[in-house]
Amino acid sequence: MTHTIRATVLQTPTVDRMTVDENALITIGDDGVIVSVEATETQNGRRTAAADKTLPDNVVLIPGLIDTHIHAPQWPQLGTGFDLPLERWLFEYTFPLEARYEHLGFATSVWEDMVPALLRRGTTTAVYYGSTHEPATVALAETCLRHGQRAFVGRVAMDHPEGTPEWYRDTDATTAVAASHRSVEAIRALPGNYGLVQPIITPRFIPACSDAALEGLGELAVATGALIQTHCSESDWEHGYVLDRFGRTDAEALHRFGLIADHTVLAHATHLTDNDRQLLRSVGAGVAHCPLSNAYFSNAVFPARRAIDAGLRVGLGTDIAGGPEPAVLAQCRHAVTASRYLEDGVDVTAASGDRGVTNSRIDITTAFWMATAGGADLLGLPIGLLEPGRQFDAVAIDRSRVTPNVEADPGDWQLVFERLVRNAGPEAIDSVWVGGKPVV
Amino acid sequence: MTHTIRATVLQTPTVDRMTVDENALITIGDDGVIVSVEATETQNGRRTAAADKTLPDNVVLIPGLIDTHIHAPQWPQLGTGFDLPLERWLFEYTFPLEARYEHLGFATSVWEDMVPALLRRGTTTAVYYGSTHEPATVALAETCLRHGQRAFVGRVAMDHPEGTPEWYRDTDATTAVAASHRSVEAIRALPGNYGLVQPIITPRFIPACSDAALEGLGELAVATGALIQTHCSESDWEHGYVLDRFGRTDAEALHRFGLIADHTVLAHATHLTDNDRQLLRSVGAGVAHCPLSNAYFSNAVFPARRAIDAGLRVGLGTDIAGGPEPAVLAQCRHAVTASRYLEDGVDVTAASGDRGVTNSRIDITTAFWMATAGGADLLGLPIGLLEPGRQFDAVAIDRSRVTPNVEADPGDWQLVFERLVRNAGPEAIDSVWVGGKPVV
Repeated sequence: MTHTIRATVLQTPTVDRMTVDENALITIGDDGVIVSVEATETQNGRRTAAADKTLPDNVVLIPGLIDTHIHAPQWPQLGTGFDLPLERWLFEYTFPLEARYEHLGFATSVWEDMVPALLRRGTTTAVYYGSTHEPATVALAETCLRHGQRAFVGRVAMDHPEGTPEWYRDTDATTAVAASHRSVEAIRALPGNYGLVQPIITPRFIPACSDAALEGLGELAVATGALIQTHCSESDWEHGYVLDRFGRTDAEALHRFGLIADHTVLAHATHLTDNDRQLLRSVGAGVAHCPLSNAYFSNAVFPARRAIDAGLRVGLGTDIAGGPEPAVLAQCRHAVTASRYLEDGVDVTAASGDRGVTNSRIDITTAFWMATAGGADLLGLPIGLLEPGRQFDAVAIDRSRVTPNVEADPGDWQLVFERLVRNAGPEAIDSVWVGGKPVV
Repeated sequence: MTHTIRATVLQTPTVDRMTVDENALITIGDDGVIVSVEATETQNGRRTAAADKTLPDNVVLIPGLIDTHIHAPQWPQLGTGFDLPLERWLFEYTFPLEARYEHLGFATSVWEDMVPALLRRGTTTAVYYGSTHEPATVALAETCLRHGQRAFVGRVAMDHPEGTPEWYRDTDATTAVAASHRSVEAIRALPGNYGLVQPIITPRFIPACSDAALEGLGELAVATGALIQTHCSESDWEHGYVLDRFGRTDAEALHRFGLIADHTVLAHATHLTDNDRQLLRSVGAGVAHCPLSNAYFSNAVFPARRAIDAGLRVGLGTDIAGGPEPAVLAQCRHAVTASRYLEDGVDVTAASGDRGVTNSRIDITTAFWMATAGGADLLGLPIGLLEPGRQFDAVAIDRSRVTPNVEADPGDWQLVFERLVRNAGPEAIDSVWVGGKPVV
């Protein structure tokens, strides 16, 4: 059996092109896969074939939004602590909060607030860091499954005796790898989980992990076939720490531990070298670009244009709570803004020619591509575009609920698209589907 | 007669200090002026005196937010056109839109959408640019008055034969000054306007004005006693243009035309020199800092910390539609983020010590101060703080309607404050008062 939805679709099949299908007829299989997308015959009126569901004229459909980097346990601290430097932010504020997820009841109360809040913002797929706790992590996967959110969920492995506090760490490398292994199995074995929620191997980052843990997790990734996520060269400090410890870059070190593979998600990756970019490209790994978080913790702007031009996979991430905005659409805006700061520079006392980095800007089309098709490519999932063969993960936005409620040029689809990506808040999101099923 | 409100008040009396008054009793006169703010006696329970209105425990009160720079006619283009360079943005997109305000019906339909939308976001005071059209400008003042929004409303003067298109400009300097003069009188004479809405002399910016218009508007400011607003040194281009035309900086040139005086609002002012800052300080003028807009049109970050340390008056502005965010709270976030880009720098290929400008960061307390007490000081109005002698312009935020709906440390008021400024959207704003009267 199939069902059909008629709607106007705005999406970005390539990094620099937005397309419009007015009143397209989308046929979706029971497995959630789009069977066909047919343009409407317009010569005899706008809607020639009946659909099971027809979205109103004021509603447009976009592909579901993909958050490729989010720390689930940090949800309660969203928007706070931004005056702390990273080390104090972690040790005095974030690690104590994460340690509370030892209590499953606390964890589930947070997951029940977070997952629906993200779905209401159009996040149909999220790549989650959990905490070190197996029950809380598996409960997060269960919550995603129950609410119908596509997700990768990773138990965080962190055992380094200096890079982590003694009250929040894995006992040792063997324990860390075994716990991660159990969480992979437990998530896969969840009742009713036919692949909507997948486990992901998650070393916190090199400074928090012993060599043995890194090596064991690399082997675990091969043994289980699970994807990998970690942080890479986020800041001057992290980049320099790995150079000091291993005499090679973060990306090179991770690669030697077997922790960079096809579709590996490297969060931030702000300080990649040219060699690092070649390495990532050659293995098919990519970057979760978290523009707002980077303003606070990365000491520079991730050169998104350079990464895309170098052929890297790039998605967008909120990096909750290092980034204080839960909506992926907001990250699209921040990605464009960050690229403009990079292109123009920031210091008025420098000559204008010396201030920024030419050819760094991206536009809203490229940002939206990262949030959809780019993120899908990073994760290796058939999502991110509403086209045959991909899952029907989609978000319906009601133009009449966007502020302002007057449009300067309502007939220009490029302007409508920009306006929606820039202005649509949660109140404008009318419905959300994942795998063909309504979830909002 | 007076009436009383009991509420917990969060505000920033100085640039670096947030204060909390739990369950304070605020007494407000019929003229909207706060008579007293009494701390609650807590020894015999939390609420010892009855109040006419007591806000629930989950609601906190903040001073009304002040938008010191907003182009009202650009409201319909909010969030669009950001890939255009400034000149094309103005001539191909913005000026054609502004020209449509010749039609009063179009204008009033926009004002009726905009003013309530801003009030719902807590903007109790707005400093508006109108268009060149007197009826549309006066209608904007009427709309503010009807909805109870405190405002400065300026008819835009622009007569330069090269800096403006022939289909959207004042005929000549004499016509421009006369029209601005009539709009000042008309706004002051509006029925029921006892000072809630004030006119403001508004030369668009030097590139759009002839010498004669600039001179005439400076004289008009003295003759009418109205405040002045204009743009100053917004971008490399504007800064350089004025240097070329007058052989002096934008601020110096404006000053010679009598267009910088006590409480003059200079939008952007990104490229001020040290001498300019001394000049502004000596006359009591200040800056409408528009952080998000600056990322797109200013070629650098306004050094807010430097301006404050130099003793300048500084408020925040949305710069709609050059800045695509209508909420002043969002500008607080962008002001902090911009300052972090300035401090850390943006280009990873530069050495970390050469990348940014040390001591540039501001925090959320300073940003909120700019949005309230700082803006009030810039405008010379008794608003911006909930204390005796100032108008009761206030915003009630419902903590339970802020996302996330779980708080990591709900007892820490500094964290609560940061969380509200960073996370509270329109949906969390429960009520708004201007001059003691409920307006939302």
